[in-house]
Amino acid sequence: MSAYKIAVMPGDGIGVEVIPEGLKVLNRAIEASGAAAELETKHFEASAKRWHETGETLTDAELEELRGFDAIYFGACGDPTTPSGVLERGIILKMRFGLDHAVNMRPSKSYPGTVSPLKDPGDIDFVVIREGTEGPYTGQGGSLRTNTPQEVANEVSVNTWFGVERTVRFAFEQARARRQKLTYVHKTNVMAHAGHLWRRVVEHVAQDYPEVAVNYEHADASTIYLVTDPARYDVIVTDNLFGDILTDLAAAVTGGIGLAASGNLNVNGTGPSLFEPIHGSAPDIAGQGIADPTAAILSGALMAEQLGLDVAAKSITAAVEADLAERGSAKRSTSEVGDAIAARIG
Amino acid sequence: MSAYKIAVMPGDGIGVEVIPEGLKVLNRAIEASGAAAELETKHFEASAKRWHETGETLTDAELEELRGFDAIYFGACGDPTTPSGVLERGIILKMRFGLDHAVNMRPSKSYPGTVSPLKDPGDIDFVVIREGTEGPYTGQGGSLRTNTPQEVANEVSVNTWFGVERTVRFAFEQARARRQKLTYVHKTNVMAHAGHLWRRVVEHVAQDYPEVAVNYEHADASTIYLVTDPARYDVIVTDNLFGDILTDLAAAVTGGIGLAASGNLNVNGTGPSLFEPIHGSAPDIAGQGIADPTAAILSGALMAEQLGLDVAAKSITAAVEADLAERGSAKRSTSEVGDAIAARIG
Ligand SMILES: CC(C)[C@H](C(=O)O)[C@@H](O)C(=O)O
Ligand SMILES: CC(C)[C@H](C(=O)O)[C@@H](O)C(=O)O
Repeated sequence: MSAYKIAVMPGDGIGVEVIPEGLKVLNRAIEASGAAAELETKHFEASAKRWHETGETLTDAELEELRGFDAIYFGACGDPTTPSGVLERGIILKMRFGLDHAVNMRPSKSYPGTVSPLKDPGDIDFVVIREGTEGPYTGQGGSLRTNTPQEVANEVSVNTWFGVERTVRFAFEQARARRQKLTYVHKTNVMAHAGHLWRRVVEHVAQDYPEVAVNYEHADASTIYLVTDPARYDVIVTDNLFGDILTDLAAAVTGGIGLAASGNLNVNGTGPSLFEPIHGSAPDIAGQGIADPTAAILSGALMAEQLGLDVAAKSITAAVEADLAERGSAKRSTSEVGDAIAARIG
Repeated sequence: MSAYKIAVMPGDGIGVEVIPEGLKVLNRAIEASGAAAELETKHFEASAKRWHETGETLTDAELEELRGFDAIYFGACGDPTTPSGVLERGIILKMRFGLDHAVNMRPSKSYPGTVSPLKDPGDIDFVVIREGTEGPYTGQGGSLRTNTPQEVANEVSVNTWFGVERTVRFAFEQARARRQKLTYVHKTNVMAHAGHLWRRVVEHVAQDYPEVAVNYEHADASTIYLVTDPARYDVIVTDNLFGDILTDLAAAVTGGIGLAASGNLNVNGTGPSLFEPIHGSAPDIAGQGIADPTAAILSGALMAEQLGLDVAAKSITAAVEADLAERGSAKRSTSEVGDAIAARIG
């Protein structure tokens, strides 16, 4: 029997409501798959709640401890009374940078039964590969003469061949295994230093993947296509900030942020990857037991896949698809959705 | 009789097709308004065409000459064979920075008769006020060990209290004259140096506008709302890059990029403002006489308004609305649309 060590970090708001459903479904799927495997979970408190009580976010000791886990299963963190940036830098980005989450993988797929705000979404099925450890997310820069009329505030986007290449290579691998189409997105026409590095890396890596058709789009143009023709995409690869923006938009046009799963992947085996729904803590609906756990459950499937539990992963995705197809407009509680999906497995 | 000196810069692709229609409508509207005014136009060649022939973009001498004009009427520039960035830096951004176009104003409005890709767009009527002279658009930064596996490329977003304040103040003025709602958009949670400058400036300026309700959104969240609830917005104020992205998306959800007008405004009287459709040169449909000139015509209305020709500006907008309402699905040529709108005036 192999035991997978999973760090469970529900966080705040609906995070604490959806993660238990994800674990319920995961455990059921592993059991039903017959794999000689089980999850050994440990709870980590990384939340606004803890910060209010103790002033701590995620400590350096905890970050070190996390390195000993096989994966991290994360809910969401944040509440309206915590200043913007405290938990992002202290928890989310601390893990992405500290655990070298090079690739942020975010699939978008229109499942039967899901409702798009678009009249004619077409058959959406793409994955965004977002760089996760550099770009405008580094926090580099600073401000001078702060809070005076002479203030200057600089924000530095740092981009390296190393960081871009590993992300782009991962994206080409995905494209080869999918429909052989890769779109890279940037603003090369304006942000030329970073943009041309991206272009040169894509052209370099493309030589190893002659079967993949490559095209380029400016980030502003991509937002247009995401609402007029989202079915055009197979794999999108882009920088940290454009990826942040495009994946929220992609979730919105596909079937809602309640379905959008993600994996923050360490691609060189130096630490655990992290899996999370991208919806955030949603304070407006938290505490009522009405949050949709589907994105958390699908993030669990991504985690199972990455742990090598392919049968379990596939059975979760299939159960979610079946549930969505028959979902209709009936309102169900968070745990009812989790139960229904778990019940469809095995 | 006052003569307004207009620099006309059709550029490339559909730019050269739509600008003449805009001028046709403008001249008709001024004449019909009875204003003792006329446009004195001078052609400037700023285009991929010129660059291919001469290697020149917009020269420093031309930039100086432009300062003597009352406004610039710009089409689009670019073609598929010009390297990304050459014309953007050499023409478009050269004017935005050189002529201090602090505010990039981009209205979004669902006119009767326009078709949105959204099922339920609601009644969209907002304006995006985009900072135009700083942020990630400055070109600051550079690359080290270029084109080697050790390359580092930095892109510096430069933000000043001065630059942000004049933009934010302009936005509050708009909000006061409209529906008293202002949304500022950034990524304060990640890009804290620039983001918190924006926040502090907004909070400072807000004190002078107690009647305006202010709220904040992260840029990624705004893309969701733009497809799920675009009617929520009145005035959006944001930085150069977020504004670039959000206005393309706004155009797409409203009625298409063929209707989206813009003004790049010098707000301190040190040079002419520039008015342009935001659609670009559209090489795929250029040369066929089928481009929709409506965005160029509406940009002409923004220009008339800024020149103080209010009656002419209003008559253009009214004529466009009437044309859109009866447009139906019949295909018309570029000049047929221009003629139809001109004919509705006076
Ligand atoms: C919470 C925030 C730091 C984060 C980001 O900007 O990456 C979120 O928006 C996301 O996409 O996971
Ligand atoms: C052409 C390009 C430089 C420009 C920009 O990025 O600002 C365009 O996209 C726009 O929005 O006017």
